[in-house]
Amino acid sequence: MTKSDQLASSLKQLIENQTWLAHAKLPSLRQQAIHSGFSLMTVLNAYQELEAQGLIYSKHKSGYYVAPLATEQLHTTTHDVSQHTIKIHSKVFQYLKATQSEQYIPFGSAFPNSRLLSDSKLFQILGQSAKHAHSYAQTPSLPPGNYELRKLIAQRYAMQGIATDPSDIVITSGGLDALNLALQATTQRGDSIVLQENSFYGAWQIAERLGLNVITVSNHPKTGLDLVALSDILQQQPIKVCFLMLNSQNPMGYTVSDEDKAKIYQMLLQQHVYLIEDDVYEELYYSDKKPISMKYYDHAHLVLHCSSFSKTLGAGFRIGWIHAAQFSERIQHLQLMSTLSVNPLIQNALVEYVSHRYYEKHLKILRLQLSELKQQYFDYLQRHLPKDCQVYLHHSGYFLWIELPPRINNIQLYEKLLSQQISTAPSDLFNTNNKYTNAIRINCSFEVNFDIKNALQKLIQALQ
Amino acid sequence: MTKSDQLASSLKQLIENQTWLAHAKLPSLRQQAIHSGFSLMTVLNAYQELEAQGLIYSKHKSGYYVAPLATEQLHTTTHDVSQHTIKIHSKVFQYLKATQSEQYIPFGSAFPNSRLLSDSKLFQILGQSAKHAHSYAQTPSLPPGNYELRKLIAQRYAMQGIATDPSDIVITSGGLDALNLALQATTQRGDSIVLQENSFYGAWQIAERLGLNVITVSNHPKTGLDLVALSDILQQQPIKVCFLMLNSQNPMGYTVSDEDKAKIYQMLLQQHVYLIEDDVYEELYYSDKKPISMKYYDHAHLVLHCSSFSKTLGAGFRIGWIHAAQFSERIQHLQLMSTLSVNPLIQNALVEYVSHRYYEKHLKILRLQLSELKQQYFDYLQRHLPKDCQVYLHHSGYFLWIELPPRINNIQLYEKLLSQQISTAPSDLFNTNNKYTNAIRINCSFEVNFDIKNALQKLIQALQ
Repeated sequence: MTKSDQLASSLKQLIENQTWLAHAKLPSLRQQAIHSGFSLMTVLNAYQELEAQGLIYSKHKSGYYVAPLATEQLHTTTHDVSQHTIKIHSKVFQYLKATQSEQYIPFGSAFPNSRLLSDSKLFQILGQSAKHAHSYAQTPSLPPGNYELRKLIAQRYAMQGIATDPSDIVITSGGLDALNLALQATTQRGDSIVLQENSFYGAWQIAERLGLNVITVSNHPKTGLDLVALSDILQQQPIKVCFLMLNSQNPMGYTVSDEDKAKIYQMLLQQHVYLIEDDVYEELYYSDKKPISMKYYDHAHLVLHCSSFSKTLGAGFRIGWIHAAQFSERIQHLQLMSTLSVNPLIQNALVEYVSHRYYEKHLKILRLQLSELKQQYFDYLQRHLPKDCQVYLHHSGYFLWIELPPRINNIQLYEKLLSQQISTAPSDLFNTNNKYTNAIRINCSFEVNFDIKNALQKLIQALQ
Repeated sequence: MTKSDQLASSLKQLIENQTWLAHAKLPSLRQQAIHSGFSLMTVLNAYQELEAQGLIYSKHKSGYYVAPLATEQLHTTTHDVSQHTIKIHSKVFQYLKATQSEQYIPFGSAFPNSRLLSDSKLFQILGQSAKHAHSYAQTPSLPPGNYELRKLIAQRYAMQGIATDPSDIVITSGGLDALNLALQATTQRGDSIVLQENSFYGAWQIAERLGLNVITVSNHPKTGLDLVALSDILQQQPIKVCFLMLNSQNPMGYTVSDEDKAKIYQMLLQQHVYLIEDDVYEELYYSDKKPISMKYYDHAHLVLHCSSFSKTLGAGFRIGWIHAAQFSERIQHLQLMSTLSVNPLIQNALVEYVSHRYYEKHLKILRLQLSELKQQYFDYLQRHLPKDCQVYLHHSGYFLWIELPPRINNIQLYEKLLSQQISTAPSDLFNTNNKYTNAIRINCSFEVNFDIKNALQKLIQALQ
């Protein structure tokens, strides 16, 4: 055993028996050398050995820190002020499986009720399209994807006052692929990004996979995103990208006002920080006017706007897109290394469906249906929820967010309801270690029939 | 300016003016300290600063090395004995675009002639399936994908003597996605993997994206994979995964014999190294017997077998799979973070198409057609190629590999032919810096009509 192996092995013990906890700072090389009596080189070798073993990690110009241990707990990380390291817990997977099973009342589902999405016109077009698809269906539709579809998407931006060229658009294999590609195109391992404290779990997972540092801005179902906190972070820390959902935020449901969006854009501009705007619920607004995208303000080309047809036509089709502007080429490169191509048959059918304005008609009906259902669920909950629970109504999307009192733990509630064949989405799925959030997210896109009423009653009982 | 900044800046100059070339080893910390008169800590800080800037990289227990500079050249890396760092060159992208454009004779295309893949039965099923898809097409088909399709795929393994359960199979968004997921599931950043020196460019790109060290084993169009070299590498170096194509190898076309496959399995077994077997051409064999997969020997669960319908039904469908065994769950997790789901409509149509044995019938015809075409192209080339060029006939796949004499450079030839509206795949696309390979790959799945004959003549002229 060399001296450095010896030192590494004794330090390893301190980590494994948790004398040194996750994210604790190790003594500096110099301190360690003095303390242990070994040379600086020996200490460096030992630290590098531990780093190679994944037991510690280094931060440039700061020093070495204890890496978090993999555990079976739901949250495997401790808070390091505002910096998280992220560990995906297997519960997200279990949770997604449960929400997909027909055995469960799907209050936990992330997807809208597919019966509301079914438009026979779309399937008619798809059927026709498939029968005559010999000429194109077998050749991959290479990035950036079907030109006609990109043109139609560009036109939809233009209608909102956002001048867009088809070449700005890259078609992706769904919205999640869009978010993945956008984040990959704008960051490098070790970069810092901003997430809302309660965010779509996919965002956390992508950040972990790409090895990014996540800095969170608090958010609240009523007051939305904390602008002051965001401004502080952007001024104080070197942030590469903000990854935000500002319209019908998942999971909380709020939409940031136009005024606040303008302010956020100014903050980004000042520090030249990119924004990945996750806007997959953009079409599900129930007020008169479509909420604007940050792309609207984007004269400096800082915004990568990501959206998809998944929430309006069905997640099974896997068609999303990025308004990628100058990142278009880089994103296409990344696609060539991963998914290669998006299904040409579906793209082709969508061209016909969207261009004949069937899509617009479908959206109008869908908004009415979802808006009514949301109101029904909200009214029921308002009437029956215990006084110490809180629910907020936002006029978009199909989620309701129920805040729980301290006497109820969101995970315990989730598990209790699951045992009664009811799935829900507990708030712990959406943050890594937030002591202040205790809530569940309810999908209210299902017709209120006997089963749903029954499930709502059970939910209320469980809350009492 | 601190002392370490000062030192970093002077070292930076040496790198930028190329006094120190890419992959050159820097003086050790101790040497540098003695040489510069700075303390060890100052030197360490300077090196870490340069590392953070991406100008140098460190290897555990070895030291610091100059990082390759980004350049506009086709190959941006120099050989470091057998270790490559990889930089994707933009030419792959240009090349893929060119092969997709209808302006070019697609000798460079990676995809089989889609006219040979068109089976009206498949499109009839797809059309019917799409029309009646309301019930399922809109809900994502969560990992591991359609159960019936996985059952059919499992049965196809069973027919080859490979006992397989549907739960071993994970459906992916095409073969490239399968390779990506398999490599991601089995490696961590910094791990070493083995690639064949001339390999599918996608494999290089994936390895780069995942931050893996690549160690290459030489291969040759006639003698195939160098088994002695592979054995040496596995014994001498800590390899995590071999990423190999053994049937109808892309780009060279050879198939490794059953006997050699058994030997390779023994080597893997000895060192407990995983194998990702890229077997997307498995169905395109023209001999009597289907070449076996390494999965056949795999009693120790080391093999992740990746395949797809792309080369037999069309890459546009984006349906591939992994025989993933114990990695199944991990791969599904990764899918939930990236592509989420594979198109349910196409999966459903494939279930009907494959289960009714339409697929088998289609494959029989396809094999005959491709085999005849390959013979035609080969015969023509044999007759007309200059004596110092060499072409090899392997009875599988739809590629021919033409070795060029030193007087012709593969990239120059590629560019010359491109200017004549003929695309080819130059050998430099398939290796990072191999001085011994100089060849082009020709796709011979296109009917020999007037245009193709003309293009073949031009190719011969360019070679003279």
